[in-house]
Amino acid sequence: MHLYRSEISPLFAETFINKVGLTESEFESFLSGFRREFVPRKYFLLKAGQVCNDHSYLNVGSTRTYTMDDKGGEHILFFAFEDWWVGDLESLETGLPSNLYIQAIEDCELLCISKMDLIKQKACIPKIQEWHNAKISKTHYRTLNRLAEVKSQTPEERYVNLINKHPQIFQRIPLQYIASYLDIEPQSLSRLRKRLSEK
Amino acid sequence: MHLYRSEISPLFAETFINKVGLTESEFESFLSGFRREFVPRKYFLLKAGQVCNDHSYLNVGSTRTYTMDDKGGEHILFFAFEDWWVGDLESLETGLPSNLYIQAIEDCELLCISKMDLIKQKACIPKIQEWHNAKISKTHYRTLNRLAEVKSQTPEERYVNLINKHPQIFQRIPLQYIASYLDIEPQSLSRLRKRLSEK
Repeated sequence: MHLYRSEISPLFAETFINKVGLTESEFESFLSGFRREFVPRKYFLLKAGQVCNDHSYLNVGSTRTYTMDDKGGEHILFFAFEDWWVGDLESLETGLPSNLYIQAIEDCELLCISKMDLIKQKACIPKIQEWHNAKISKTHYRTLNRLAEVKSQTPEERYVNLINKHPQIFQRIPLQYIASYLDIEPQSLSRLRKRLSEK
Repeated sequence: MHLYRSEISPLFAETFINKVGLTESEFESFLSGFRREFVPRKYFLLKAGQVCNDHSYLNVGSTRTYTMDDKGGEHILFFAFEDWWVGDLESLETGLPSNLYIQAIEDCELLCISKMDLIKQKACIPKIQEWHNAKISKTHYRTLNRLAEVKSQTPEERYVNLINKHPQIFQRIPLQYIASYLDIEPQSLSRLRKRLSEK
Protein backbone atom coordinates (compact mmCIF):
# COMPACT_ATOMS: atom_id res chain seq x y z
CA MET A 1 0.00 0.00 0.00
CA HIS A 2 1.45 3.30 -1.07
CA LEU A 3 2.07 5.86 1.68
CA TYR A 4 0.90 9.39 1.00
CA ARG A 5 2.75 12.47 2.17
CA SER A 6 -0.23 13.49 4.30
CA GLU A 7 0.12 10.26 6.28
CA ILE A 8 3.66 10.82 7.43
CA SER A 9 5.05 13.14 10.05
CA PRO A 10 6.36 16.40 8.53
CA LEU A 11 9.56 15.66 10.49
CA PHE A 12 10.13 12.54 8.41
CA ALA A 13 9.98 14.45 5.12
CA GLU A 14 12.03 17.28 6.57
CA THR A 15 14.80 14.89 7.67
CA PHE A 16 15.12 13.19 4.33
CA ILE A 17 14.61 16.19 2.05
CA ASN A 18 16.26 19.01 4.00
CA LYS A 19 18.89 17.21 6.09
CA VAL A 20 19.75 14.08 4.09
CA GLY A 21 19.27 16.07 0.87
CA LEU A 22 17.18 13.59 -1.16
CA THR A 23 15.64 14.90 -4.35
CA GLU A 24 11.85 14.68 -4.65
CA SER A 25 12.12 11.58 -6.81
CA GLU A 26 14.65 9.92 -4.46
CA PHE A 27 12.34 10.66 -1.54
CA GLU A 28 9.36 9.16 -3.37
CA SER A 29 11.44 6.08 -4.17
CA PHE A 30 12.59 5.78 -0.54
CA LEU A 31 9.04 6.22 0.77
CA SER A 32 7.82 3.47 -1.55
CA GLY A 33 9.90 1.02 0.53
CA PHE A 34 7.84 1.76 3.65
CA ARG A 35 4.58 0.40 4.95
CA ARG A 36 2.45 1.76 7.78
CA GLU A 37 1.79 -0.39 10.84
CA PHE A 38 -0.31 0.21 13.93
CA VAL A 39 0.72 -1.33 17.24
CA PRO A 40 -1.79 -0.77 20.05
CA ARG A 41 -0.49 0.04 23.50
CA LYS A 42 0.95 -2.90 25.46
CA TYR A 43 1.50 -4.88 22.23
CA PHE A 44 5.01 -5.76 21.15
CA LEU A 45 7.03 -4.53 18.18
CA LEU A 46 9.67 -7.15 19.01
CA LYS A 47 10.19 -9.87 21.60
CA ALA A 48 13.40 -11.57 22.71
CA GLY A 49 13.90 -14.70 20.61
CA GLN A 50 12.40 -13.09 17.49
CA VAL A 51 14.46 -11.79 14.58
CA CYS A 52 14.08 -8.07 13.92
CA ASN A 53 13.15 -7.71 10.24
CA ASP A 54 12.27 -4.00 10.08
CA HIS A 55 13.79 -0.64 10.78
CA SER A 56 10.83 1.40 12.02
CA TYR A 57 10.19 5.11 12.28
CA LEU A 58 7.94 6.11 15.16
CA ASN A 59 5.39 8.37 13.49
CA VAL A 60 3.10 8.54 16.54
CA GLY A 61 3.39 7.06 20.05
CA SER A 62 6.04 5.89 22.48
CA THR A 63 7.84 2.62 23.19
CA ARG A 64 10.06 1.08 25.80
CA THR A 65 13.02 -1.21 25.01
CA TYR A 66 13.90 -3.61 27.82
CA THR A 67 15.74 -6.77 28.70
CA MET A 68 14.44 -9.48 31.00
CA ASP A 69 16.56 -11.17 33.65
CA ASP A 70 16.39 -14.87 34.57
CA LYS A 71 13.73 -14.19 37.20
CA GLY A 72 11.45 -12.31 34.79
CA GLY A 73 12.46 -8.86 36.01
CA GLU A 74 12.25 -6.15 33.34
CA HIS A 75 15.04 -3.57 32.90
CA ILE A 76 14.28 -0.60 30.67
CA LEU A 77 17.20 0.53 28.52
CA PHE A 78 15.49 3.22 26.42
CA PHE A 79 12.26 4.99 25.72
CA ALA A 80 11.42 6.19 22.21
CA PHE A 81 9.03 8.92 21.12
CA GLU A 82 7.88 10.47 17.83
CA ASP A 83 10.62 10.94 15.22
CA TRP A 84 12.81 8.18 16.67
CA TRP A 85 13.73 4.95 14.97
CA VAL A 86 13.09 1.67 16.78
CA GLY A 87 14.29 -1.87 16.25
CA ASP A 88 17.25 -4.04 17.17
CA LEU A 89 20.01 -3.04 14.74
CA GLU A 90 22.15 -6.08 15.60
CA SER A 91 19.37 -8.58 14.98
CA LEU A 92 18.39 -6.66 11.82
CA GLU A 93 21.93 -6.91 10.48
CA THR A 94 22.89 -10.40 11.59
CA GLY A 95 19.51 -12.14 11.26
CA LEU A 96 20.06 -13.60 14.75
CA PRO A 97 17.29 -13.56 17.39
CA SER A 98 17.08 -10.41 19.49
CA ASN A 99 17.63 -10.27 23.25
CA LEU A 100 15.37 -7.23 23.51
CA TYR A 101 11.70 -6.54 24.04
CA ILE A 102 10.22 -3.44 22.38
CA GLN A 103 6.71 -2.68 23.61
CA ALA A 104 4.26 0.11 22.72
CA ILE A 105 3.56 2.26 25.79
CA GLU A 106 1.00 4.35 23.91
CA ASP A 107 -0.80 3.39 20.70
CA CYS A 108 1.90 3.54 18.04
CA GLU A 109 1.89 4.28 14.34
CA LEU A 110 5.07 3.14 12.62
CA LEU A 111 6.58 3.57 9.20
CA CYS A 112 8.43 0.31 8.64
CA ILE A 113 11.01 -0.62 6.06
CA SER A 114 12.11 -4.23 5.75
CA LYS A 115 15.74 -5.26 5.85
CA MET A 116 15.67 -6.19 2.15
CA ASP A 117 14.04 -2.92 1.10
CA LEU A 118 16.50 -0.93 3.20
CA ILE A 119 19.42 -2.75 1.55
CA LYS A 120 17.92 -2.00 -1.87
CA GLN A 121 17.39 1.69 -1.07
CA LYS A 122 20.93 2.03 0.31
CA ALA A 123 22.35 0.46 -2.85
CA CYS A 124 20.28 2.75 -5.14
CA ILE A 125 20.64 6.02 -3.18
CA PRO A 126 24.09 6.63 -1.65
CA LYS A 127 22.64 9.40 0.57
CA ILE A 128 20.46 6.77 2.25
CA GLN A 129 23.56 4.67 2.89
CA GLU A 130 25.25 7.71 4.45
CA TRP A 131 22.17 8.54 6.50
CA HIS A 132 21.97 4.97 7.80
CA ASN A 133 25.65 4.93 8.75
CA ALA A 134 25.24 8.25 10.58
CA LYS A 135 22.13 6.88 12.32
CA ILE A 136 24.09 3.86 13.61
CA SER A 137 26.91 6.14 14.83
CA LYS A 138 24.50 8.41 16.68
CA THR A 139 22.68 5.43 18.17
CA HIS A 140 26.05 4.16 19.36
CA TYR A 141 26.97 7.50 20.96
CA ARG A 142 23.62 7.63 22.75
CA THR A 143 24.03 4.07 24.00
CA LEU A 144 27.56 4.73 25.26
CA ASN A 145 26.41 7.87 27.06
CA ARG A 146 23.56 5.91 28.60
CA LEU A 147 26.03 3.24 29.78
CA ALA A 148 28.28 5.92 31.30
CA GLU A 149 25.24 7.47 33.00
CA VAL A 150 24.04 4.13 34.40
CA LYS A 151 27.54 3.31 35.70
CA SER A 152 28.50 6.68 37.17
CA GLN A 153 25.47 8.80 38.03
CA THR A 154 23.18 8.69 41.04
CA PRO A 155 19.46 8.04 40.45
CA GLU A 156 18.85 11.73 41.24
CA GLU A 157 21.31 12.87 38.55
CA ARG A 158 19.74 10.46 36.06
CA TYR A 159 16.28 11.77 36.98
CA VAL A 160 17.33 15.40 36.42
CA ASN A 161 18.87 14.51 33.03
CA LEU A 162 15.72 12.71 31.96
CA ILE A 163 13.45 15.59 32.97
CA ASN A 164 15.69 18.08 31.18
CA LYS A 165 15.58 16.02 27.99
CA HIS A 166 11.88 15.09 28.20
CA PRO A 167 10.02 17.57 30.43
CA GLN A 168 6.65 15.97 29.57
CA ILE A 169 7.71 12.40 30.28
CA PHE A 170 5.56 11.94 33.39
CA GLN A 171 2.49 12.88 31.34
CA ARG A 172 3.15 10.04 28.90
CA ILE A 173 5.10 7.28 30.63
CA PRO A 174 3.90 5.38 33.71
CA LEU A 175 5.93 6.04 36.85
CA GLN A 176 7.01 2.41 37.28
CA TYR A 177 8.61 2.43 33.81
CA ILE A 178 10.50 5.63 34.57
CA ALA A 179 11.63 4.05 37.85
CA SER A 180 12.96 1.00 35.97
CA TYR A 181 14.79 3.25 33.50
CA LEU A 182 16.39 5.13 36.40
CA ASP A 183 17.17 1.97 38.46
CA ILE A 184 15.18 3.16 41.44
CA GLU A 185 12.16 1.84 43.32
CA PRO A 186 8.85 3.51 42.29
CA GLN A 187 8.30 4.71 45.90
CA SER A 188 11.76 6.29 45.99
CA LEU A 189 11.08 8.00 42.66
CA SER A 190 7.85 9.48 44.05
CA ARG A 191 9.72 10.79 47.09
CA LEU A 192 12.52 12.15 44.87
CA ARG A 193 10.03 13.98 42.63
CA LYS A 194 8.29 15.47 45.66
CA ARG A 195 11.56 16.57 47.22
CA LEU A 196 12.90 18.16 44.02
CA SER A 197 9.60 19.90 43.23
CA GLU A 198 9.70 21.55 46.66
CA LYS A 199 13.16 23.02 46.05
CA MET B 1 58.02 7.19 9.93
CA HIS B 2 57.09 4.26 7.76
CA LEU B 3 55.76 1.20 9.56
CA TYR B 4 57.20 -2.15 8.50
CA ARG B 5 55.21 -5.35 8.34
CA SER B 6 57.43 -6.91 10.96
CA GLU B 7 56.39 -4.20 13.41
CA ILE B 8 52.69 -4.89 13.31
CA SER B 9 50.68 -7.69 14.78
CA PRO B 10 50.00 -10.46 12.23
CA LEU B 11 46.34 -10.08 13.27
CA PHE B 12 46.30 -6.54 11.86
CA ALA B 13 47.50 -7.65 8.44
CA GLU B 14 45.21 -10.69 8.54
CA THR B 15 42.16 -8.52 9.23
CA PHE B 16 42.80 -6.10 6.43
CA ILE B 17 44.09 -8.53 3.81
CA ASN B 18 42.04 -11.66 4.48
CA LYS B 19 38.84 -10.29 6.02
CA VAL B 20 38.50 -6.76 4.61
CA GLY B 21 40.00 -7.98 1.33
CA LEU B 22 42.50 -5.19 0.63
CA THR B 23 45.01 -5.82 -2.15
CA GLU B 24 48.69 -5.65 -1.23
CA SER B 25 48.98 -2.12 -2.60
CA GLU B 26 45.80 -0.96 -0.83
CA PHE B 27 47.13 -2.43 2.40
CA GLU B 28 50.47 -0.64 1.95
CA SER B 29 48.63 2.61 1.27
CA PHE B 30 46.41 2.13 4.35
CA LEU B 31 49.41 1.27 6.53
CA SER B 32 51.18 4.45 5.39
CA GLY B 33 48.48 6.43 7.24
CA PHE B 34 49.53 4.92 10.58
CA ARG B 35 52.21 5.84 13.07
CA ARG B 36 53.43 3.81 16.04
CA GLU B 37 53.05 5.20 19.55
CA PHE B 38 54.14 3.87 22.91
CA VAL B 39 52.09 4.64 26.00
CA PRO B 40 53.67 3.38 29.24
CA ARG B 41 51.40 1.86 31.89
CA LYS B 42 49.34 4.32 33.92
CA TYR B 43 49.72 7.00 31.21
CA PHE B 44 46.66 8.22 29.34
CA LEU B 45 45.68 7.75 25.70
CA LEU B 46 42.81 10.21 26.26
CA LYS B 47 41.44 12.28 29.11
CA ALA B 48 37.98 13.83 29.55
CA GLY B 49 38.04 17.35 28.13
CA GLN B 50 40.47 16.42 25.34
CA VAL B 51 39.41 15.88 21.74
CA CYS B 52 40.12 12.38 20.39
CA ASN B 53 42.12 12.84 17.18
CA ASP B 54 43.15 9.25 16.48
CA HIS B 55 41.63 5.86 15.91
CA SER B 56 44.15 3.51 17.50
CA TYR B 57 44.81 -0.19 17.10
CA LEU B 58 46.12 -1.88 20.22
CA ASN B 59 49.14 -3.80 18.94
CA VAL B 60 50.41 -4.72 22.43
CA GLY B 61 49.02 -4.06 25.91
CA SER B 62 45.71 -3.39 27.62
CA THR B 63 43.66 -0.31 28.48
CA ARG B 64 40.70 0.69 30.58
CA THR B 65 38.04 3.19 29.46
CA TYR B 66 36.26 4.91 32.32
CA THR B 67 34.13 7.89 33.30
CA MET B 68 34.58 9.93 36.43
CA ASP B 69 31.69 11.06 38.62
CA ASP B 70 31.44 14.47 40.36
CA LYS B 71 33.22 13.10 43.42
CA GLY B 72 36.19 11.75 41.46
CA GLY B 73 34.97 8.14 41.52
CA GLU B 74 36.06 6.09 38.50
CA HIS B 75 33.64 3.78 36.69
CA ILE B 76 35.15 1.36 34.18
CA LEU B 77 33.06 0.85 31.06
CA PHE B 78 35.43 -1.36 29.04
CA PHE B 79 38.78 -3.04 28.96
CA ALA B 80 40.68 -3.43 25.70
CA PHE B 81 43.37 -5.93 24.79
CA GLU B 82 45.53 -6.73 21.75
CA ASP B 83 43.74 -6.52 18.38
CA TRP B 84 41.09 -4.08 19.69
CA TRP B 85 40.60 -0.51 18.56
CA VAL B 86 40.55 2.24 21.17
CA GLY B 87 39.45 5.85 21.12
CA ASP B 88 36.27 7.86 21.55
CA LEU B 89 34.41 7.52 18.24
CA GLU B 90 31.99 10.35 19.06
CA SER B 91 34.75 12.84 19.91
CA LEU B 92 36.71 11.65 16.84
CA GLU B 93 33.73 12.31 14.57
CA THR B 94 32.36 15.50 16.10
CA GLY B 95 35.61 17.15 17.22
CA LEU B 96 33.98 17.80 20.60
CA PRO B 97 35.83 17.07 23.87
CA SER B 98 35.50 13.54 25.18
CA ASN B 99 33.85 12.56 28.46
CA LEU B 100 36.03 9.47 28.70
CA TYR B 101 39.39 8.55 30.14
CA ILE B 102 41.42 5.86 28.38
CA GLN B 103 44.41 4.72 30.40
CA ALA B 104 47.12 2.14 29.69
CA ILE B 105 46.93 -0.67 32.27
CA GLU B 106 50.01 -2.39 30.83
CA ASP B 107 52.67 -0.78 28.60
CA CYS B 108 50.90 -0.23 25.30
CA GLU B 109 52.06 -0.12 21.72
CA LEU B 110 49.52 1.48 19.42
CA LEU B 111 49.13 1.88 15.68
CA CYS B 112 47.41 5.25 15.33
CA ILE B 113 45.69 6.80 12.36
CA SER B 114 44.60 10.43 12.56
CA LYS B 115 41.07 11.53 11.78
CA MET B 116 42.20 13.26 8.57
CA ASP B 117 44.20 10.26 7.38
CA LEU B 118 41.31 7.94 8.14
CA ILE B 119 38.95 10.18 6.14
CA LYS B 120 41.44 10.16 3.24
CA GLN B 121 41.84 6.37 3.34
CA LYS B 122 38.06 5.85 3.46
CA ALA B 123 37.60 8.14 0.45
CA CYS B 124 40.34 6.35 -1.55
CA ILE B 125 39.55 2.76 -0.59
CA PRO B 126 35.82 1.93 -0.34
CA LYS B 127 36.64 -1.31 1.52
CA ILE B 128 38.11 0.80 4.33
CA GLN B 129 34.88 2.80 4.46
CA GLU B 130 32.91 -0.46 4.70
CA TRP B 131 35.26 -1.84 7.34
CA HIS B 132 34.93 1.34 9.43
CA ASN B 133 31.12 1.28 9.19
CA ALA B 134 31.08 -2.36 10.25
CA LYS B 135 33.47 -1.53 13.12
CA ILE B 136 31.11 1.19 14.41
CA SER B 137 28.14 -1.20 14.16
CA LYS B 138 29.96 -3.92 16.10
CA THR B 139 31.14 -1.42 18.70
CA HIS B 140 27.52 -0.35 19.07
CA TYR B 141 26.27 -3.91 19.52
CA ARG B 142 28.92 -4.57 22.15
CA THR B 143 28.04 -1.36 24.00
CA LEU B 144 24.33 -2.15 23.95
CA ASN B 145 24.99 -5.67 25.26
CA ARG B 146 27.18 -4.20 28.00
CA LEU B 147 24.36 -1.77 28.93
CA ALA B 148 21.86 -4.65 29.06
CA GLU B 149 24.29 -6.66 31.20
CA VAL B 150 24.89 -3.75 33.62
CA LYS B 151 21.15 -3.12 33.94
CA SER B 152 19.91 -6.67 34.26
CA GLN B 153 22.61 -9.07 35.51
CA THR B 154 23.87 -9.72 39.00
CA PRO B 155 27.56 -9.08 39.72
CA GLU B 156 28.04 -12.87 39.82
CA GLU B 157 26.55 -13.28 36.34
CA ARG B 158 28.72 -10.44 35.03
CA TYR B 159 31.77 -12.05 36.63
CA VAL B 160 31.07 -15.42 35.00
CA ASN B 161 30.60 -13.74 31.59
CA LEU B 162 33.85 -11.86 31.95
CA ILE B 163 35.82 -14.95 32.93
CA ASN B 164 34.32 -16.90 30.04
CA LYS B 165 35.32 -14.18 27.58
CA HIS B 166 38.74 -13.45 29.10
CA PRO B 167 39.92 -16.44 31.17
CA GLN B 168 43.33 -14.79 31.76
CA ILE B 169 41.98 -11.42 32.88
CA PHE B 170 43.08 -11.76 36.52
CA GLN B 171 46.66 -12.31 35.34
CA ARG B 172 46.66 -8.96 33.52
CA ILE B 173 44.18 -6.60 35.16
CA PRO B 174 44.32 -5.50 38.81
CA LEU B 175 41.46 -6.78 40.94
CA GLN B 176 40.18 -3.31 41.83
CA TYR B 177 39.70 -2.49 38.13
CA ILE B 178 37.79 -5.71 37.54
CA ALA B 179 35.66 -4.87 40.59
CA SER B 180 34.86 -1.42 39.13
CA TYR B 181 33.97 -3.00 35.79
CA LEU B 182 31.62 -5.44 37.58
CA ASP B 183 30.13 -2.81 39.95
CA ILE B 184 31.16 -4.72 43.03
CA GLU B 185 33.43 -3.96 45.99
CA PRO B 186 36.96 -5.46 45.67
CA GLN B 187 36.43 -7.45 48.91
CA SER B 188 33.17 -8.89 47.58
CA LEU B 189 34.89 -9.83 44.32
CA SER B 190 37.61 -11.69 46.25
CA ARG B 191 34.94 -13.60 48.19
CA LEU B 192 32.99 -14.31 45.00
CA ARG B 193 36.12 -15.67 43.27
CA LYS B 194 36.90 -17.88 46.27
CA ARG B 195 33.35 -19.19 46.48
CA LEU B 196 33.11 -19.97 42.75
CA SER B 197 36.55 -21.59 42.63
CA GLU B 198 35.47 -23.99 45.42
CA LYS B 199 32.41 -25.18 43.47
